[in-house]
Amino acid sequence: MSIESASFLRSFFEPRSIAVFGSMREPSGEGLMVIRNLLDFGFRGRIFPVSRSAAEVMSLRACPDVADTDEPPELALLITPPPTVLPIIEQCGRRGVRAVIVVTEGFAEASPEGARQQRVLVETARRFGMRLLGPNTLGVLNTASRLVTYGYPLSGNQPLPGGVSYCTQTGFLTFGVHPVRDLGYPISKVCDFGNKCDVNETDILPFLAADDSTRVICLHLEDIKDGQHFQEAAAAAVARKPVLVLKPGRSDAGARAASSHTGSLAGDDLIYESALKQAGVIRLKTWREYWEIPRALAMQPLPAGNRVAVVTATGGAGVILIDAAAEAGLAPAAFTPPTRRLLQDLSPPLGGNPVDTGPLMSVRDDPFNIYLEVVPAILADPNVDCLAVVCHLGQPIVEVLTRLAPEIARSGKPVTVFGYGVDLPDMQRSARQVEALGLPAYLDLEITVKALGVAAACSRHRARLEGKPWAGA
Amino acid sequence: MSIESASFLRSFFEPRSIAVFGSMREPSGEGLMVIRNLLDFGFRGRIFPVSRSAAEVMSLRACPDVADTDEPPELALLITPPPTVLPIIEQCGRRGVRAVIVVTEGFAEASPEGARQQRVLVETARRFGMRLLGPNTLGVLNTASRLVTYGYPLSGNQPLPGGVSYCTQTGFLTFGVHPVRDLGYPISKVCDFGNKCDVNETDILPFLAADDSTRVICLHLEDIKDGQHFQEAAAAAVARKPVLVLKPGRSDAGARAASSHTGSLAGDDLIYESALKQAGVIRLKTWREYWEIPRALAMQPLPAGNRVAVVTATGGAGVILIDAAAEAGLAPAAFTPPTRRLLQDLSPPLGGNPVDTGPLMSVRDDPFNIYLEVVPAILADPNVDCLAVVCHLGQPIVEVLTRLAPEIARSGKPVTVFGYGVDLPDMQRSARQVEALGLPAYLDLEITVKALGVAAACSRHRARLEGKPWAGA
Repeated sequence: MSIESASFLRSFFEPRSIAVFGSMREPSGEGLMVIRNLLDFGFRGRIFPVSRSAAEVMSLRACPDVADTDEPPELALLITPPPTVLPIIEQCGRRGVRAVIVVTEGFAEASPEGARQQRVLVETARRFGMRLLGPNTLGVLNTASRLVTYGYPLSGNQPLPGGVSYCTQTGFLTFGVHPVRDLGYPISKVCDFGNKCDVNETDILPFLAADDSTRVICLHLEDIKDGQHFQEAAAAAVARKPVLVLKPGRSDAGARAASSHTGSLAGDDLIYESALKQAGVIRLKTWREYWEIPRALAMQPLPAGNRVAVVTATGGAGVILIDAAAEAGLAPAAFTPPTRRLLQDLSPPLGGNPVDTGPLMSVRDDPFNIYLEVVPAILADPNVDCLAVVCHLGQPIVEVLTRLAPEIARSGKPVTVFGYGVDLPDMQRSARQVEALGLPAYLDLEITVKALGVAAACSRHRARLEGKPWAGA
Repeated sequence: MSIESASFLRSFFEPRSIAVFGSMREPSGEGLMVIRNLLDFGFRGRIFPVSRSAAEVMSLRACPDVADTDEPPELALLITPPPTVLPIIEQCGRRGVRAVIVVTEGFAEASPEGARQQRVLVETARRFGMRLLGPNTLGVLNTASRLVTYGYPLSGNQPLPGGVSYCTQTGFLTFGVHPVRDLGYPISKVCDFGNKCDVNETDILPFLAADDSTRVICLHLEDIKDGQHFQEAAAAAVARKPVLVLKPGRSDAGARAASSHTGSLAGDDLIYESALKQAGVIRLKTWREYWEIPRALAMQPLPAGNRVAVVTATGGAGVILIDAAAEAGLAPAAFTPPTRRLLQDLSPPLGGNPVDTGPLMSVRDDPFNIYLEVVPAILADPNVDCLAVVCHLGQPIVEVLTRLAPEIARSGKPVTVFGYGVDLPDMQRSARQVEALGLPAYLDLEITVKALGVAAACSRHRARLEGKPWAGA
């Protein structure tokens, strides 16, 4: 699957127009809900509601049939009962639609008969030269074209534009069931493959690899449709940007559960593990890593090596982080003599890593300004490739990081922030302010270094590909 | 260390009176802050501010010297400069104080000279028959006696009374730097050992094991002072209630970092691992597990076996959870024929585990009521020892769980809840409502089954101790 041949995906993510098939009944018809979400999100293309019962939907003229739209819709979205899906696909094919998203459930995931019907959908779409996403999917989202195909109330959960593209095999790992807005996730595109009857991970990798607004590709896979082609597509994508994968089914029980979820054959996990590794894909382990790690790589550069420094206002956190760093494939940086001297001039016990500024902060009138002295010195140290900062999350640290942000950016080294505190809403508010500076801010401790570990693993693989030196320990 | 000999700890957790030494200067003297926190929290004993400069502190009569208090204080708290600590301890000893908490930093963690001075503190306290907690500690908290010795603004972060007692070697793992109130943690006692010059983990285990309001003991340890005695105390405590330990230093780098933090000798991790295991102590792996897992064990019974069922409104989460369950030492339950038939009567694809109610919910007018049918049937199945429920967290599920809570309690089987959604403040509010029903509610997916895995490991160890059968797979 070459990058050029993936251009059909533009019809899914940047269509000039979309036809929506589904109930337009007030207050919660699913077709109506999609149209409301498209309007709320500010979709940049034309919207054609298709309805036999309504003449107008949300002030848009509705058509009884897709044949009656002003122009052939580029994309069609179906949230209609299973028996209607095939005839609508045929109508779309005749009208010249390029891409179809079938949200409808009740196909391969439901029964053998559903699987047979699903095969007929694909054959029909292909006969007309159309591509098909789903069925059993929440569809797609694109923060650039303001496209969203979600059929439930968005409730203001519209992601911020950013560098992470998520592709999943379950609606559970989309913006549809995660508070991406409240958590400030920077998102480019989201694609739920659903039953993956046609469009799949091997199609999307070259498309996202070539997509300028995608800086990191994060996939959730319960199975892989064509291992050989996937590996080639993944290796090609990895050469351009990090590719991260959450793939459950490590246990036999998990593999069986995956198989019954989307009717997929999960296969032997060891084979996947080795294929992903060879392609340079980084495997994530948990739901939280899937949500939290990609944005660190989207917001920060990759490190030139794996030597991590930890600056912390509390010694206890430093100990845990240095331990977690080792598990994440990082090595604690050993500072050069000038850095050690600078730290010891501030306070004699300093000079080691983690840099525990806590005791010094407790005797200073301007405790937070210590970060202004310590962070630039550490980032300037040639023995340091990346930095995790542990701090009390609130207005003082937001002000300090605002002053430090340009210097951190100039250093070219990735920095992550863990923030603690006692007032959760205030912490969450401050975290968003820190992220507005381009610095990933976490309320989970170990993820702060795990994210750096994943970034270092991507960087190591890229150095190997490019035959460049790697500063790793 | 027998259980009886630990009774001196009552002077630390339930003192009739406390003397506070430290700056009483408005607005933020540390002694003043402690007194304000004691009053805000509703401390049930007498408070003696000790101050040469103030005659009255927060409407309490202040004394220039501990010799002048109405009665000998049972507990003394010191937040004073290092050179003053020894003379104050001597004064306290002469006055008949029973227990001293030294918050002051600058002892063993700071320098060899500090370590020497620390030894003198201990010898002096012991000469007067006093016990000493710290130095370099945030002290203690007890939700029953409303005692808190924290010297920073609590900002309303007062924990709810409950069954978890936390003991740590760093203030970082106390209520002082975690939003325990906003997160609704049910807490009995908190103890920060600090430099652990005298009172340590081996003292506190028998005390907490005998403490009726403590249902789960959770320790953070960077080192263990006396391995042999600790192992005996831990084994005795484990026979009465779960003991969980977070001990960093798994990596060599982490062990070195621990040593420089509190001046402790961390030792070989494999030795600790084996000692903890033999004693039946469960080792936690992360900061998040330390905070999230204990309350599940405090709120729910231990399971009689390790066979877990998962009921989920989204198939994708079910797959991840079954996988995570295997890693947590659980086995997916295979339902008995009556349960399978009941599930299949609801919907033919059901009957397996995870129970994916999603497709059925999408075609029902009362989707959330499916939990009312499914959860009791699963809990009644003799092949099921524990249950994880995945649901959209909001008012409908709060109402459903309110109806289910009595039946869940009667089943005697532990249940945990993972809730998803798109509105973070609403999810957090709903989670607190679910927990008010006695059900641990998580916003982190895998922890839902990890907590059950830890509970099952505790139960398995207890069955072994008591020579009882274990239903584990």
